[in-house]
Amino acid sequence: MESTPLLVGLDVGTTNIKAIAFDPAGQAVAQATVPTPTHYHPEPSRQGWAYYHPEELWETTARALRQVTAGLTEPGRVVGVAVASVGETGIPLDRAGRPTGEAIAWFDRRTTEQAAWLDAQIGWERLFAISGLALQPIFGLCKVLWLRQHEPEAWARTARWLNVADYIAYRLSGQMATDFSLASRTLALDLHRLRWATELLAELGLPPDLFAPLTASGTPLGPVLPEVAAATGLPSHAQVAVGGHDHVCGALALGVTDPGTVLNSLGTAEAVFLPVTRPLTDPAFGQQGYSQGTHVDGRHYYALGGLYTSGASVEWFREAIADGAPYATLIQEAADVPPGSLGVCFLPHLRLANPPHLDPRSRGAFIGLSTEARRGVLFRALLEGLSLEMRSTLEPLLGHAQATLQRVMATGGGTRNELWIRIKAGVLDRPVHVVSVAESTALGAAVLAGMGAGVYADVADALARLALTATPVHPVPEEARLYSRIYREVYSHVYETLRPLHHALDTIRSSRSS
Amino acid sequence: MESTPLLVGLDVGTTNIKAIAFDPAGQAVAQATVPTPTHYHPEPSRQGWAYYHPEELWETTARALRQVTAGLTEPGRVVGVAVASVGETGIPLDRAGRPTGEAIAWFDRRTTEQAAWLDAQIGWERLFAISGLALQPIFGLCKVLWLRQHEPEAWARTARWLNVADYIAYRLSGQMATDFSLASRTLALDLHRLRWATELLAELGLPPDLFAPLTASGTPLGPVLPEVAAATGLPSHAQVAVGGHDHVCGALALGVTDPGTVLNSLGTAEAVFLPVTRPLTDPAFGQQGYSQGTHVDGRHYYALGGLYTSGASVEWFREAIADGAPYATLIQEAADVPPGSLGVCFLPHLRLANPPHLDPRSRGAFIGLSTEARRGVLFRALLEGLSLEMRSTLEPLLGHAQATLQRVMATGGGTRNELWIRIKAGVLDRPVHVVSVAESTALGAAVLAGMGAGVYADVADALARLALTATPVHPVPEEARLYSRIYREVYSHVYETLRPLHHALDTIRSSRSS
Repeated sequence: MESTPLLVGLDVGTTNIKAIAFDPAGQAVAQATVPTPTHYHPEPSRQGWAYYHPEELWETTARALRQVTAGLTEPGRVVGVAVASVGETGIPLDRAGRPTGEAIAWFDRRTTEQAAWLDAQIGWERLFAISGLALQPIFGLCKVLWLRQHEPEAWARTARWLNVADYIAYRLSGQMATDFSLASRTLALDLHRLRWATELLAELGLPPDLFAPLTASGTPLGPVLPEVAAATGLPSHAQVAVGGHDHVCGALALGVTDPGTVLNSLGTAEAVFLPVTRPLTDPAFGQQGYSQGTHVDGRHYYALGGLYTSGASVEWFREAIADGAPYATLIQEAADVPPGSLGVCFLPHLRLANPPHLDPRSRGAFIGLSTEARRGVLFRALLEGLSLEMRSTLEPLLGHAQATLQRVMATGGGTRNELWIRIKAGVLDRPVHVVSVAESTALGAAVLAGMGAGVYADVADALARLALTATPVHPVPEEARLYSRIYREVYSHVYETLRPLHHALDTIRSSRSS
Repeated sequence: MESTPLLVGLDVGTTNIKAIAFDPAGQAVAQATVPTPTHYHPEPSRQGWAYYHPEELWETTARALRQVTAGLTEPGRVVGVAVASVGETGIPLDRAGRPTGEAIAWFDRRTTEQAAWLDAQIGWERLFAISGLALQPIFGLCKVLWLRQHEPEAWARTARWLNVADYIAYRLSGQMATDFSLASRTLALDLHRLRWATELLAELGLPPDLFAPLTASGTPLGPVLPEVAAATGLPSHAQVAVGGHDHVCGALALGVTDPGTVLNSLGTAEAVFLPVTRPLTDPAFGQQGYSQGTHVDGRHYYALGGLYTSGASVEWFREAIADGAPYATLIQEAADVPPGSLGVCFLPHLRLANPPHLDPRSRGAFIGLSTEARRGVLFRALLEGLSLEMRSTLEPLLGHAQATLQRVMATGGGTRNELWIRIKAGVLDRPVHVVSVAESTALGAAVLAGMGAGVYADVADALARLALTATPVHPVPEEARLYSRIYREVYSHVYETLRPLHHALDTIRSSRSS
């Protein structure tokens, strides 16, 4: 055991930065969590602006690394480190690698105008044909264009734009590289040829080498810099490897690399993640609100659909309606209600519609209410509505990917709600395999670190050694038949039916607040 | 003051029997309340059957009278008594005036088959043309037909069928009569000619004198029988007068006799009551779920629409959703939410649709839900939905009556919720005049007693002496404009839009429970 190597995975997320040291079997040996230092512009005219100071981001990450190495009896056993991070966020750097400005947060809203400009200049369809993405303001290219327009002085000094994970890896190793998964969130990657879209960059008047050289996740970049070793407690022999996009690294750690396996991540939002063999080219895919990118396994792409208010719906019900009642109470009340929730049906569009419906004016609804509809009935209807909506997002995704569903895996905090998973199994009429890995994103980064350090021969070797166990939850046939009817005869019509009412309500609300 | 006469009003209701002694100014001097002795058939095959034992009904009423006279220092000052009661409930009597069977409760469900038979034999349209009523199983005639079919022996002895108020007045005075307001709930009154529909009775093979002689409300029947005086404490000189249908007596007491004045009664259900000058003849009026009958003021008819789950919706929200939170808390939370409830809209069809929609398969809904929709938002939306639904019921009613709305009066427990009344005023864009008379039904009966005893010269005299005060609640112009838009652009489409979804949900539920 003395010689067991350790791998450090960094997870630079929206809320926290986590540094975790794993053994090669995926067991966490030590970990540190520090809040992500996010800043918000206080001026009312800049509402929705959020950013990071690059140096502060690095210092905070270094602090997390110091904490995790301090927790190791033999930090010298660390042989590799890699970084997973949020996407759509980059740090502008000068030729010497020094930041020229703030890093605009992925969820920042200042770039609407740049997206509109791109649509006018290049066109939505052509951008989709190149990048596989439906144009949205959050993508990296819009942020680059914002910088050029609004901070010309900083822009004049900017030579490179590194994603967050790239930047941390650069600070660790002194080497600049961008992996394909983060590159595929810039809008500047030619997804089909897996190279930067240099013609597009030229057309936009951007330098061809603005983005760092594309390098596969898990590729070694070099050892930790001596001064970084001193500052973080990492040994200077530890290899830094190319990391990737956080949720894709998480999918890697859970072994979700095969087309036909769907990973359903249940967080505040919910993701339906499907590995695919090649990029999808039908623009309808993008118009319906789906997204895609490159996997970090070096062999696949992925197609993705999101439910924007999933856990958020559950939390909304608990906080806003049920006066903060304990989850256990609500779940027990819902479990006592028969499947079908006495005819109550919930549409979980509490902020906007989900793929395949692209509609920011859609809203949520409870229909079918009777005097029998007690709180537990509504909560069961909510869990059923989320499960039916997941089916509604999944089915067109499978259609676009021409994939046959082989296996459904579920992960995330929502899997602790066994009733929800049972309902999901019924709605999908197939087993749902629950995998619980406490920190799959950091573990995915550690897997890439292990590949860079030669601990794992390849992805298959790594996954075999992690030996994840999944717990299947099977559908109850009678429930599956009922949910199939509800889906076909009711649920699949709810959004379209309510659309004109929700649009009318939104029109009235908008005209009042303006 | 010594010589001030007293008037006893009896209110034989669904839940309680009340006996109240009033002075001629309408102040209650003493009152007694006893539960209505209702029986339910225990057999599962007779679910929904409810009835009264006539003798027990009388004994219970006599007990209430004993209690109220015991509370008077000078019971001898009572100069008159009259009875208001539930409608659609009658006691079958033999030639000697003895009950031949149970009195089937107005809400009893056993008579569906008789209504269907009447529809087949006579036809819905012809029954509407005669009675002004859309055929429903609850009407008196269906109960008579049930008795004939299912209890032939009792039927053979039956010579008369007296409404509850008629029966109590008969037990008090020994005289049989039926007023027009209760008669108009039998389906056997020719509403246009104000006589029993003897041709219809003949066609159905029923005796022409099955129902008691039609007599105007407030007509003296004679003094209290000596043995009744002994049993109840009423003086034997007190005059018994013809009473009427409970909610119509309530409208009388509140002075709602003018066409153009709407009375909005806010109870578990909500009534929209409009005096009219002549019966309405368009069958659509009945098909849309509206009803009509004769007023007890001797000069008018009334047209009526009901919201079946009004206070019931409020109570549902409090009990089933808000875990029994105090009303004051919920109302304060709702008052803190801006008008329009942040785009949330509530359809209050928790059991069925309301006029002008005749649809037992409609159900309730909250639409427009966002993560901002906290409990107070939902509760405000509920109050707004009830108010919008009331407008939706009122407008076609005014159209059928060709009436111009002059004045809206509101009464009942719901008027204590000032926010609800303010919302109503906004939705209707006119003042709502709140009248609070604790026991308007019993007071209406007392007014009729006073007319019979000569205390009041006529209805106008009575109303002048009651000197009711109404508190106006005025609309806020900005809120009225907003509610007008919501009504026009959203609310007036909600029921129709949701109908196919609610029907589909009902179909699934019915097929499962069968």
